[in-house]
Amino acid sequence: MTASAPLVEVTRGLSVESRHTGAVAIADVTGKLVFSLGDAERLTFPRSGVKALQGLPLVESGAAARFGLTEAELALACASHGGEPEHVATAAGALARLGLTADALECGAHWPMNDAAARALAASGAGPTTLHNNCSGKHAGFLCLACAMEVEPAGYIDAEHPVQREVTAALEAMTGTRLAEAPRGVDGCGIPTFAMPLAAVATAFARFGAGHGLGEHRAAAARTLREAAWSAPFQIGGSGRFDTEAMQLGAGRVFVKMGAEGVHVGAIPELGYGVAIKIDDGATRAAEAVMAAVLIRLLAPEGDFGEWLAGRVRRPLRNWAGVEVGEVRATELLAG
Amino acid sequence: MTASAPLVEVTRGLSVESRHTGAVAIADVTGKLVFSLGDAERLTFPRSGVKALQGLPLVESGAAARFGLTEAELALACASHGGEPEHVATAAGALARLGLTADALECGAHWPMNDAAARALAASGAGPTTLHNNCSGKHAGFLCLACAMEVEPAGYIDAEHPVQREVTAALEAMTGTRLAEAPRGVDGCGIPTFAMPLAAVATAFARFGAGHGLGEHRAAAARTLREAAWSAPFQIGGSGRFDTEAMQLGAGRVFVKMGAEGVHVGAIPELGYGVAIKIDDGATRAAEAVMAAVLIRLLAPEGDFGEWLAGRVRRPLRNWAGVEVGEVRATELLAG
Repeated sequence: MTASAPLVEVTRGLSVESRHTGAVAIADVTGKLVFSLGDAERLTFPRSGVKALQGLPLVESGAAARFGLTEAELALACASHGGEPEHVATAAGALARLGLTADALECGAHWPMNDAAARALAASGAGPTTLHNNCSGKHAGFLCLACAMEVEPAGYIDAEHPVQREVTAALEAMTGTRLAEAPRGVDGCGIPTFAMPLAAVATAFARFGAGHGLGEHRAAAARTLREAAWSAPFQIGGSGRFDTEAMQLGAGRVFVKMGAEGVHVGAIPELGYGVAIKIDDGATRAAEAVMAAVLIRLLAPEGDFGEWLAGRVRRPLRNWAGVEVGEVRATELLAG
Repeated sequence: MTASAPLVEVTRGLSVESRHTGAVAIADVTGKLVFSLGDAERLTFPRSGVKALQGLPLVESGAAARFGLTEAELALACASHGGEPEHVATAAGALARLGLTADALECGAHWPMNDAAARALAASGAGPTTLHNNCSGKHAGFLCLACAMEVEPAGYIDAEHPVQREVTAALEAMTGTRLAEAPRGVDGCGIPTFAMPLAAVATAFARFGAGHGLGEHRAAAARTLREAAWSAPFQIGGSGRFDTEAMQLGAGRVFVKMGAEGVHVGAIPELGYGVAIKIDDGATRAAEAVMAAVLIRLLAPEGDFGEWLAGRVRRPLRNWAGVEVGEVRATELLAG
């Protein structure tokens, strides 16, 4: 098996201008690969792709219920959001339930990822805070878990903090991996990230989506998070974002989430399948095209969802004057 | 020869998280390859990498001198600028010499590529104009040429307009290619872009840098444009940009210019070499690391320039809290 497969082409005129390679793993709840391209066992940092798995302890511990987190707040805990006003308000609201403010967040501040939101923030005369960090919802969830565990919240991003131990244990159980000796890095928001086989990530999302093999308690938590995302898909990403639009149109059918450096994961409950994608070079544009092609291959949805996916499998590129100059397209390898 | 070489790794912790492949061609003024990685003959859209070549007719026709373009305005004609206030003022100044305004530019409007400039513009209550387009200086140059040729400026971006015919003829002569049957696309700013062998682009920049084989008139024009870039390197890119910093520190020794989709080109007059780089996936971060490694390989400069290049061959990645989490680094294939 080759390590990498040609997954996406970027065209200009009638020529291919750029190419993206990578790997795709689609697994069932038992861990059996039902489809793959490239090396499905490659070690991959799943980055923000696994935020929903990192959110399981928040729900199954009873912390979310104890502090009365809303569906929007739970969706934001699984999000890489654009820092739009709705996201900022939701993060602030979750912290307020804990009696905390943005000062408690250890994710760092950055300008909103959504360009229009960044410009509007600048126009207001204000600057970015930790609430605008795309991970602020996940971090508010970590703080909620710390409060419910009655441990000192400060330092909650450290690998040895009780919160991260719970989060890592959930990742291990869901992926069926042992992470103690796994290659480790620091994620963009400061928490540990572990390299794991791509197929193990796919298996975890098969389980997350179908609830099989998790035990009643964890299966209920997974359902709560899925339903939160489907109820409040804007919180997961924001304006124009792939995951938000996919779950607005595919609510109940697909859970999808991007991660940095060309990661995309998905759960398809009705099939009991999980999907994990890694683009070698880290390109989001390519990961999205591949996810769209995978969802068409597996579900062939009709209507608005199907049309939207088709437009993401082959996405037109326009120049600054609005002229169509090429497209980003998944290769035929991904066709059903 | 393999089509692509492993050129850049992106690490997280001790692991390689993402990889970039591509091709490098280094040629002399005769077109002889002196070094290559990957397929040096691959057809490549050089995009904005060839703006300096597209600027030759502006100078050699006498148009720039007739309208009194400054060195800053000539540098901006070769630029992919950040839309910072200095760039906008320079573009407006060049148009004013022609009795024209931003309305004459056909490049389209976009928010400044420089994030801080975009936010400052939004904070001022204004929006982007064609002057903020990263190609506005090149387009002002096209208009200057049209005025000097005494042809109708409107439509100057069309392949059949007298301005584009001059520009294409200069590209053909510099690269030694015939572009009539070359794969063609529309560039981000609306003008034609032609796919050509990477080695031909490298040869063109060897000639551009050394002035050999161009005839006296064109050689003088190339020197004028090189010296404009070295005199006003901020205009070429802007704050924090690779090309600007490289020419601030390496003025007189290197001319470098990025292009969209992972293109980078360079001229090294003292060696008579030209460089052309294409990253398969289109990543700028990778093209910059490769160019830095190539310049160290060829010049091994000491002092500030050498230190700056070393910091670009291995560039630390920091997360939002400022913690170093990995690096972007050129592979050993590029070491001398």
